[in-house]
Amino acid sequence: MPRQFRTIAICFMLGLAISSAQAAGPQAATPQVAARTWRQAHEKAIVADFFTLLAMPDVATNLADVDKNAAYIEGQLKARGFETSLLRAAPGTPASVFAEMKVPGAAHTVIFYAHYDGQPVGQKGWITSPFEPSMRTALPDARPVDWQNAPGPLDPEWRLFGRASGDDKATIEAMLVALDALKAAHIQPTVNIKLLYEGEEEQGSPHFPALIAKNIALLHGDLLIMGDGPMHQSGKQMVNFGNRGIASLSMTVYGPLRPLHDGHYGSWAPSPSVMIANLIASLCDDNGHILIPHFYDDVAPVSAADKAALAAMPPVEAQLKQALGLGRNVGPPRLADGYLAPTLNVRAIHVGDEGPSAANAIATLADASLDFRLAPGETPAHTRDLLEAYLAQLGWFIVRDDPDLATRLSHPKIVKVVWDEGGAIAVKIPLDLPQSQAVVASIGRTVGYPPIELPIVGASSGIADVVGQLHVPMAGVSIANYDDNQHAQNENLRLGNLWDGIEVYAGLLADMNW
Amino acid sequence: MPRQFRTIAICFMLGLAISSAQAAGPQAATPQVAARTWRQAHEKAIVADFFTLLAMPDVATNLADVDKNAAYIEGQLKARGFETSLLRAAPGTPASVFAEMKVPGAAHTVIFYAHYDGQPVGQKGWITSPFEPSMRTALPDARPVDWQNAPGPLDPEWRLFGRASGDDKATIEAMLVALDALKAAHIQPTVNIKLLYEGEEEQGSPHFPALIAKNIALLHGDLLIMGDGPMHQSGKQMVNFGNRGIASLSMTVYGPLRPLHDGHYGSWAPSPSVMIANLIASLCDDNGHILIPHFYDDVAPVSAADKAALAAMPPVEAQLKQALGLGRNVGPPRLADGYLAPTLNVRAIHVGDEGPSAANAIATLADASLDFRLAPGETPAHTRDLLEAYLAQLGWFIVRDDPDLATRLSHPKIVKVVWDEGGAIAVKIPLDLPQSQAVVASIGRTVGYPPIELPIVGASSGIADVVGQLHVPMAGVSIANYDDNQHAQNENLRLGNLWDGIEVYAGLLADMNW
Repeated sequence: MPRQFRTIAICFMLGLAISSAQAAGPQAATPQVAARTWRQAHEKAIVADFFTLLAMPDVATNLADVDKNAAYIEGQLKARGFETSLLRAAPGTPASVFAEMKVPGAAHTVIFYAHYDGQPVGQKGWITSPFEPSMRTALPDARPVDWQNAPGPLDPEWRLFGRASGDDKATIEAMLVALDALKAAHIQPTVNIKLLYEGEEEQGSPHFPALIAKNIALLHGDLLIMGDGPMHQSGKQMVNFGNRGIASLSMTVYGPLRPLHDGHYGSWAPSPSVMIANLIASLCDDNGHILIPHFYDDVAPVSAADKAALAAMPPVEAQLKQALGLGRNVGPPRLADGYLAPTLNVRAIHVGDEGPSAANAIATLADASLDFRLAPGETPAHTRDLLEAYLAQLGWFIVRDDPDLATRLSHPKIVKVVWDEGGAIAVKIPLDLPQSQAVVASIGRTVGYPPIELPIVGASSGIADVVGQLHVPMAGVSIANYDDNQHAQNENLRLGNLWDGIEVYAGLLADMNW
Repeated sequence: MPRQFRTIAICFMLGLAISSAQAAGPQAATPQVAARTWRQAHEKAIVADFFTLLAMPDVATNLADVDKNAAYIEGQLKARGFETSLLRAAPGTPASVFAEMKVPGAAHTVIFYAHYDGQPVGQKGWITSPFEPSMRTALPDARPVDWQNAPGPLDPEWRLFGRASGDDKATIEAMLVALDALKAAHIQPTVNIKLLYEGEEEQGSPHFPALIAKNIALLHGDLLIMGDGPMHQSGKQMVNFGNRGIASLSMTVYGPLRPLHDGHYGSWAPSPSVMIANLIASLCDDNGHILIPHFYDDVAPVSAADKAALAAMPPVEAQLKQALGLGRNVGPPRLADGYLAPTLNVRAIHVGDEGPSAANAIATLADASLDFRLAPGETPAHTRDLLEAYLAQLGWFIVRDDPDLATRLSHPKIVKVVWDEGGAIAVKIPLDLPQSQAVVASIGRTVGYPPIELPIVGASSGIADVVGQLHVPMAGVSIANYDDNQHAQNENLRLGNLWDGIEVYAGLLADMNW
């Protein structure tokens, strides 16, 4: 959050907290005040506890590593009075930590999702070992800080470096501290709590759908809060209400069986580079518009509430263009306005053999990797049908494996289309659902301003499958700074974001109802 | 040459040789008969001499290596009565061997060009060390042969393996043996002879134009015979009368300054992969037609003689499609029919960062490598103007270096266009020029059938510059088998091609006039 916004926000928060406390009587602090009071009194202990969690290697390709994390987190929750269990799709697969706390008199049950596993750490350029968490000064300096011996409050601009610091152990740590704060202030949650902390999200959740399917009854609830991902670029709190779907694929087109001299053969032999360029150009124009017939037919209309929320999004576009060196954008002028429509992303094109003797050659094949981000209303299956019908209409013969000679000779234009597994439909709930508004209202009371309401996230998420299986509305709440280097080297969490996250979660636990 | 054609050709040749000899009286063998007689008597000595030449490393990045070749070849020519010199553009650059023989009474001077340097040898998969020449049985077996101790004539289907065996020392060896054969038969050449053997052709002839410029007077002549490249796929002798020009370039288009998550930003941030695909598709359609306005305006009309020659080309297309696995071709149905028009070749497109974390990213830039093969009438400079005017018309802002932030921000679509040095115009002489018909007639008498007349070679050649500087008509005569693996590992020359080449060169020396 930029400094000028933060100052204003803190003034708002303090004002609101004081007036709420006054309204409820002096003995009952709000959850937000309780969280802040507790945090201010325990900053170093909180950081030390978080460091313990961050120091555990958590790449899910190592089952022993993630199991240690799961056991540790389960222990932390048991100690806080939860009934816990470790759920697995099958033996030998990463566990999800499940924890439940029933609250007397609570009418609704909220499932809080996060994941404790982290991205692989093989990237170059880590300035600190990924599993030796360290406190550092504000970016871009990031000098090591002796925080244990620092006098007074810790600087909220400091950064905690370590894998999973932002993505996504911050959410788990914020929950643990919020629970402690509420308990210390004798504040009872307003909802029954179910925690579901996944252990293989960064591997693409290969076993998670099966794990959910085995535990449908256990995971019953009235709202799922998806705690993952970074906050809005403005630094303001944001709630989202879904994710786009995805269908991804690779395509290969074929030229001659061996590279040919392009002077001798270029007038006559079809060039896979020209073919792939024309193929891609036939799918998507230079302004990002998808040219596949009927591709937009199924897209759900944008509701008035969604339109209003999108119109209220803080402008980030000018700042982004500056930061990204962009002289234009494609699609609608506002970044989030495109999220309720599909997008075709051409992730990679590779054609042309490397090496000294290949410079003047017609290559043998061209590869492209693509994904479609799907809007509500679209499905991976129909996306596949539409694309393949269009390719056929354009004269492409579609194969699933490299074609043999007979196939090559009998079809003038051949494209191998291989769809990735794991396509997903979009998930989205209306902004005017009671649960949606309850989340927005709770966070608004905590932070002192109306949080941004993002109708849908542009990216896709494995949570779509969970939501689909559980038939539960979802809202996404992120607490990590947007510049947390998630998935990259030097992942880091801004300390102030953890502090704010504790308050947000305290509010979601004990200041939310509908 | 396929066996059935060869048998017919040999019958023709013998028939022709006998009748010619009869016409001229018994004491005067034709050059072809003299060459064959000499070769048949000296097969093993010829191979041994050729092995000596092939055993000399000849990659022009090593000056000492190519200088040894030059000295050896100069010695061979001096011994055959030539006045010789080593020409260099500057000290420290590879030498061209120049040799001259004036023939009393000869009206014309013919410059025979070849190059003695070879391609680099770093390719994997050499079955024999590139500079340890070896004789092997016919392909695909290619078993080593003890040719020194073989009884009777050597099998013309055997292959001589070694770097430069086909490209291009075969031409030099054929010339040396042809000179020996003519001398032994007391046959005087019919033309004054100038030999020009380059030493850096496979490096792109960086100093050769300057070398020519320094020696314009020395190199004066009436015809240049370009002895390089492989023969026609049919195995028939072929004469060509020029090469297409070339203008090559690389293009880079720019997306965001850092890779972006394509779910979050794909609807909004311009994708360099889509940009490069649309750019290339705007240059060239799927049938190989160049879409740049006015690109075909300058192309010289195809003469009636060229049309007749093209129509008489042996069909290779069905066989090529089968061998290359092609279900169609682009451009005109006949391979050579496209050579008198320009071609755009997109040699490579690369976009999309590799690696695990880049899978869902919008890349920062996209690269493409292209060349235009230019028809007679077109120039690299005008090609550049036409392309760049068209790019500007399509909204592209052209830069020569990576753009800075201010440039990025002020131009919506930026393309870096970097033209390679060394562009060339096409060189082409009319088929009905006296020199053209003299070459065709000489080879026809030697081989016993009308050679294929190719109006122009689809590829480009550094010889264009030489021809331009010397204002001399050129004809291309190749002797190496088309499957000689030139530029690749396991370069090889079919022994019968060397035998035939000796006869062809004997004819060009002593049975050609106009």
